[in-house]
Amino acid sequence: MSIVAKQASAPAKKIRLNAFAANGPVHLSPGFWTHPEDRSLEYKTIDHWLDLARLLERGKFDALFLADGNGVNDVYGGSADTAIRLGAQIPRGDPFVVVPAMAAVTRHLGFGVTGNVSYEPCVPFARRLTTLDHITGGRIAWNIVTGFLASAAKAQGQAKVTAHDTRYDIADEYMEVMYKLWEGSWQDDAVIADRATGQFAAPERVHKIKHDGEHFHVEAIFMSEPSPQRTPLLFQAGASTRGRAFAGRHAECVFVSGPSRQVIAPIVADTRRKAAEQGRDPHDIRFFSLATVIVAPTQAEASAKFDEYTRYINQEAALAMFSSWTGTDFSSHDLGAPIPYVVRDAAMNSAIESFTIADPDRVWTLREMMMHNAIGGRGPVFVGDPISVADALQSWVADTNVDGFNLSYALMPNDFRDFIDLVVPELQSRGVYKRHYAAGPLREKLFGPGRARVLDTHPASIFRA
Amino acid sequence: MSIVAKQASAPAKKIRLNAFAANGPVHLSPGFWTHPEDRSLEYKTIDHWLDLARLLERGKFDALFLADGNGVNDVYGGSADTAIRLGAQIPRGDPFVVVPAMAAVTRHLGFGVTGNVSYEPCVPFARRLTTLDHITGGRIAWNIVTGFLASAAKAQGQAKVTAHDTRYDIADEYMEVMYKLWEGSWQDDAVIADRATGQFAAPERVHKIKHDGEHFHVEAIFMSEPSPQRTPLLFQAGASTRGRAFAGRHAECVFVSGPSRQVIAPIVADTRRKAAEQGRDPHDIRFFSLATVIVAPTQAEASAKFDEYTRYINQEAALAMFSSWTGTDFSSHDLGAPIPYVVRDAAMNSAIESFTIADPDRVWTLREMMMHNAIGGRGPVFVGDPISVADALQSWVADTNVDGFNLSYALMPNDFRDFIDLVVPELQSRGVYKRHYAAGPLREKLFGPGRARVLDTHPASIFRA
Repeated sequence: MSIVAKQASAPAKKIRLNAFAANGPVHLSPGFWTHPEDRSLEYKTIDHWLDLARLLERGKFDALFLADGNGVNDVYGGSADTAIRLGAQIPRGDPFVVVPAMAAVTRHLGFGVTGNVSYEPCVPFARRLTTLDHITGGRIAWNIVTGFLASAAKAQGQAKVTAHDTRYDIADEYMEVMYKLWEGSWQDDAVIADRATGQFAAPERVHKIKHDGEHFHVEAIFMSEPSPQRTPLLFQAGASTRGRAFAGRHAECVFVSGPSRQVIAPIVADTRRKAAEQGRDPHDIRFFSLATVIVAPTQAEASAKFDEYTRYINQEAALAMFSSWTGTDFSSHDLGAPIPYVVRDAAMNSAIESFTIADPDRVWTLREMMMHNAIGGRGPVFVGDPISVADALQSWVADTNVDGFNLSYALMPNDFRDFIDLVVPELQSRGVYKRHYAAGPLREKLFGPGRARVLDTHPASIFRA
Repeated sequence: MSIVAKQASAPAKKIRLNAFAANGPVHLSPGFWTHPEDRSLEYKTIDHWLDLARLLERGKFDALFLADGNGVNDVYGGSADTAIRLGAQIPRGDPFVVVPAMAAVTRHLGFGVTGNVSYEPCVPFARRLTTLDHITGGRIAWNIVTGFLASAAKAQGQAKVTAHDTRYDIADEYMEVMYKLWEGSWQDDAVIADRATGQFAAPERVHKIKHDGEHFHVEAIFMSEPSPQRTPLLFQAGASTRGRAFAGRHAECVFVSGPSRQVIAPIVADTRRKAAEQGRDPHDIRFFSLATVIVAPTQAEASAKFDEYTRYINQEAALAMFSSWTGTDFSSHDLGAPIPYVVRDAAMNSAIESFTIADPDRVWTLREMMMHNAIGGRGPVFVGDPISVADALQSWVADTNVDGFNLSYALMPNDFRDFIDLVVPELQSRGVYKRHYAAGPLREKLFGPGRARVLDTHPASIFRA
């Protein structure tokens, strides 16, 4: 599971870092909540989140990226029993709720929050994101998802999950409504707030939004004045062809997951190409690659730590999650038997090869495949001392053209803590990681001064008042 | 506008207090944001809310009660221009977003948050409330509203606002879905979290929710394990006949608004009667009466302060709000002309006489009526020294049978600060106000030990697993 680092001959490209987590006892490393040092079970307490936020800000992370899912993993064995028994991504709290608490004890840390366009009504959801962006001083990113779980669709009163490409068509229209609300309602000069005259705003600079489309019908004066970023920083993670087209159009940051450089590099290249086709500068998208780092002062200690970790993997929980991700019930499969190179991924329609192509030249067993995803999900696991980890991160960036990482974890919060204590100083000494946060909202932190708002080349800009 | 206190011969009934506010520059006192000491314009900053929460906890308030509205006041003059120009309840941020931030700096203060059943999809909304209840340690109350603004309905893609009584029928069914999710999904003994065996939960104790009703169709395993209160403390504010029936059935706390004891007392009595008809103990509902207190060390100083305040009332903004509340466009009415005793309240279908019955024996002019509601809304304004204010509060409680007050304000946060510095000690010295918070979740704080969950007589209990 470890990947040996190439010698770091890559140019000194700056590396961006998010922490990747979810509001529950299990995110992508099933079983690790049973480790005596793990604090995942404390997810229901506010102190858990305050401590995590303070830790990540100490490490100068750009953001905490919070995943979400509105349904239960119930493909494995045709029921949710295994997922519930092992806590495999259930329970899961609302990720939006913990963000304001963390904002109260940090000043710079950003928050990337997953929100599902299939289940969030657009007008109140736009207001919720704007309010978040206000009270965090512009630190909000929205990870746009469309939802692939049938269980989530049923929970929302839908007979079945909407077809994949249709979900993206709906999402395109949804984004148009959001852009109208965020960019086209209140002009920058609308709020006057003159105590002398009593005038709060200029009505002629506040525009009613009208949208009469195929899926959405809205006539609204947006209830929120513009937040620091107006449109929050837009994240997206779709790896399918349609998903990449959506990302090329809307995303300012893309989250890519795959076990090898060979999986990641073409997704990055293709998404940049799709952005260029939309008239955008392909470098106006920041790519974050999923990875997990298990670091210790020496290589030997790191290996020992990794060996200890593997004892905490819950294989059955990993299979339950893997079954839902691939839409394939693996409960009756022989762990030692080879699995076909391409498992049909009916639900996600994402590239199933992204699970398997770490070494595409051989046939994988189900056990190997499952184990490959059981620590931190389908990204690589870098195990080593600070120097070899830094080398690996740098060469991964060089080979894939990503801008940084969404760092997953096995132990909460130890793996983030160790990364911050050991790897961050090494990256800083190499000049590839910031020593101080830049000023301004999250979008400026990632793209530079003057970039608080979406660019003129971004489709949101069309709807500016 | 001030009400002279009766001599306090009332029994020493304990008084409960919430602060009543909204996430915007104007709540119920239009124009006061122009006062040099007012901080309402800072509503977009997190420090504004942290400071307010710390202040209210210092004053041992039970909760901060946050109003909300999803639409703009656009009845006056047939447009939203006046409301926008004067900031009359627009902008308004999402009230849920500021709660976790305040929870991070307080330990006991509760949060009553307005959520609209017409616009919030039930499954994710139930999860949001549960997550809030988790991270606040059980400090969440939900103020159930159905929405009366046509502008809000249009903003959600609805052709028009649903008829009043139908909204309550839908709300009844909505509550049934919520109760199933909160009370009937995870048993108390479902979560095991045994690090030794790796078992997180017992699947046979987590029940899939099925609801196939007239308005809602849900098949879901709830994603959240039970929070301290399970069902959050339920607030309701409907004063209409149908609203009182709903409150009698569902509400554990009722928020009543009216300018006089004669308005409030029968609402309280009738709602308690309706609760009894549902098999509930009529005293299992706590009533909070809207009031504003303008207090100073001496009566003369209080009067001077009140006189100064009246200069900040924005009459046009007050009329714009009053027009939406009553569904009557007052833009062309003569301020000096008498208005009919009963104005038809088509939109709210609440008792319009609650605006006018402060003195039912005479005809009111529009100016009088508007001014009567321009400081803190349609509740009384108590102006005086600490002793006379305490007398007034106690006699109001005695005469109406309410349990306490939702305290509105003219100046944010000065009126809360002055109340806490001057009136709270007076109430404490009389033995009618707590010196320390009780332990436990909000429901226990209000109803006593052992009352963390809804009672067996509450309709939510029917759906317990």
